[in-house]
Amino acid sequence: MTHRIAVIPGDGIGKEVMPEGLRALEAAAERFGIDLALEPFDFASCDYYLAHGQMLPDDWFERLKDHDAIFYGAVGWPETVPDHVSLWGSLLQFRRGFDQYVNLRPCRLLPGVKSPLAGRAPGDIDFYVVRENTEGEYSSVGGRMFEGTEREVVIQETVMTRTGVDRVLAYAYELAASRPRKTLTSATKSNGIAITMPWWDERVKAVGERYPEVSVQAFHIDILAANFVMHPDWFDVVVASNLFGDILSDLGPACTGTIGVAPSANINPDGAFPSLFEPVHGSAPDIAGQGIANPIGQIWSAAMMLEHLGHGEAGAAIVYAFEAVLAEGDPAVLTPDVGGHGTTETLGRAIAERI
Amino acid sequence: MTHRIAVIPGDGIGKEVMPEGLRALEAAAERFGIDLALEPFDFASCDYYLAHGQMLPDDWFERLKDHDAIFYGAVGWPETVPDHVSLWGSLLQFRRGFDQYVNLRPCRLLPGVKSPLAGRAPGDIDFYVVRENTEGEYSSVGGRMFEGTEREVVIQETVMTRTGVDRVLAYAYELAASRPRKTLTSATKSNGIAITMPWWDERVKAVGERYPEVSVQAFHIDILAANFVMHPDWFDVVVASNLFGDILSDLGPACTGTIGVAPSANINPDGAFPSLFEPVHGSAPDIAGQGIANPIGQIWSAAMMLEHLGHGEAGAAIVYAFEAVLAEGDPAVLTPDVGGHGTTETLGRAIAERI
Ligand SMILES: CC(C)[C@H](C(=O)O)[C@@H](O)C(=O)O
Ligand SMILES: CC(C)[C@H](C(=O)O)[C@@H](O)C(=O)O
Repeated sequence: MTHRIAVIPGDGIGKEVMPEGLRALEAAAERFGIDLALEPFDFASCDYYLAHGQMLPDDWFERLKDHDAIFYGAVGWPETVPDHVSLWGSLLQFRRGFDQYVNLRPCRLLPGVKSPLAGRAPGDIDFYVVRENTEGEYSSVGGRMFEGTEREVVIQETVMTRTGVDRVLAYAYELAASRPRKTLTSATKSNGIAITMPWWDERVKAVGERYPEVSVQAFHIDILAANFVMHPDWFDVVVASNLFGDILSDLGPACTGTIGVAPSANINPDGAFPSLFEPVHGSAPDIAGQGIANPIGQIWSAAMMLEHLGHGEAGAAIVYAFEAVLAEGDPAVLTPDVGGHGTTETLGRAIAERI
Repeated sequence: MTHRIAVIPGDGIGKEVMPEGLRALEAAAERFGIDLALEPFDFASCDYYLAHGQMLPDDWFERLKDHDAIFYGAVGWPETVPDHVSLWGSLLQFRRGFDQYVNLRPCRLLPGVKSPLAGRAPGDIDFYVVRENTEGEYSSVGGRMFEGTEREVVIQETVMTRTGVDRVLAYAYELAASRPRKTLTSATKSNGIAITMPWWDERVKAVGERYPEVSVQAFHIDILAANFVMHPDWFDVVVASNLFGDILSDLGPACTGTIGVAPSANINPDGAFPSLFEPVHGSAPDIAGQGIANPIGQIWSAAMMLEHLGHGEAGAAIVYAFEAVLAEGDPAVLTPDVGGHGTTETLGRAIAERI
């Protein structure tokens, strides 16, 4: 059986880390005898936008929907295309169009990576952020009124549905139930965001009735963010709305030393549509073109993709490989963000060889 | 001239730290010959709610509006009153009713306090969060539809006005212009929250034209939160919407070791209404009743209040006093969150004596 994978490098460092993601993917495929058909696409990038006036071709849905997965780099180049145009025209289309309603993001302090938090060692930080990925604060409903005048008012609606919230909560409870600590943390802000968030709390309770074995605790997002820094060891599975999940899944990896290594899976759990795998980091215009971006976020995303496709062992081999290379700590191999003076390619090659 | 100050302890540890806040305030007033009339109020607390069925008396506005300032503890007791009821019924009423449109929150790593961030010393972290305090994501517009059914939809609107945003931006620019580094950071999320936030970015640019001496940089809130942990030394003045400011002003203090010391000023810069001074921390039901809450957030808020009332020297004396007590580091005096085994009162008394 061949897995058809759409490969979309995107912009900036997306184009630099993607080759290393593919190198790792192909090494694992070879070792474990997995048959992959990798199809590259140039759309969903700002270059494509500049040439075509839109981020995606009109038939993007048709062209991608029968793939088994999408392997994405990073998108955004604000110098030429405003971020809300590039992102809403690409990544956010995929997440909604393919109903990838779970965004799963592991936060783990890896061997050989220095946490900015004092006294934290590998094993101390090891949790998942489960982020709602299709609705909530990322809505396209709203607009401007009295534009350009002193009376100007701008409104944007947060839209939550029972369907949308319950299913991601169920996913998070299932994940928590499958882990030894069986602990779920819900990100709320029901004291301030007083319409949607008290309702979110109610749904957390209601869905939780089906999972009596999971102990659940809610924190307001402000103190939760603070606790990521003060007590990262408290967390096991954290479930959050689209916006809160976005914030927590950058903050969590920052606490583990670098967001350069963090992966994410945009999952359609029903399997009706392809899921999408991408690093948490963006296109990073500030370091793009220098060949120094850490490819591990992309490589770890490849591991999550293989696991999703039913090749757990191959995924684990990739994780094992980059952990080993990090633990060795050869500065000639490692990228600057993890204390080395190597390049995207030296690190990517070292990991692929290890696989 | 007598300053009339409304004193509202509120709930939980609010009732424990308030006496120490007053002790410091009175010590400073005595030393600098400041005439204070302190009037205690029992409303804006959950006890009041349980007795009266509402958080505030009907005439709260009349009773408070002629005070020169409000000195507040903390509010919230979710065991008996849901947070959105207690907070929207008290603190959020004050902020809006008295048009306290700036929420100013210093983040500073203090001598003697251990940062959870590795290798950071006093001086490395020293910035302000300027938070919009009356509108934005904290709106009361929205509701539920198809309630209790599978089709349930819940909507909450974020409402931003040009008046509301421009004035807080101007405050932030002024503050940045007055500081040596003259650097303003804007918290945005224009790639995801694609209606209000691109407009926020436009207003940051437009208002900035009046402050050519200030250099301004925008970060999306996800990576900004990450950078608070990775590069807290980058920041000087950070301006943010109501929700983003809420998150950043808990996260910032967490990076400086404890949110127990962080103060905040809810300011009506026009002076038409009283401004409100309160610690950043909440009522902390988990440690309430033990007498171990750190009173410095309350005491530092007293210092900000004195400065606001035109007594900068007296405010500085309070800050100097708690810095000195922290630097001494006597564990019998300090509360547990800063490494001691003292109480709210031992720490409060030591500071008052020093003043
Ligand atoms: C208690 C809550 C409503 C409040 C807020 O979110 O504004 C608090 O967290 C704060 O920061 O003052
Ligand atoms: C680029 C942006 C729209 C996106 C998001 O906010 O979802 C990114 O930050 C992420 O976390 O995947």
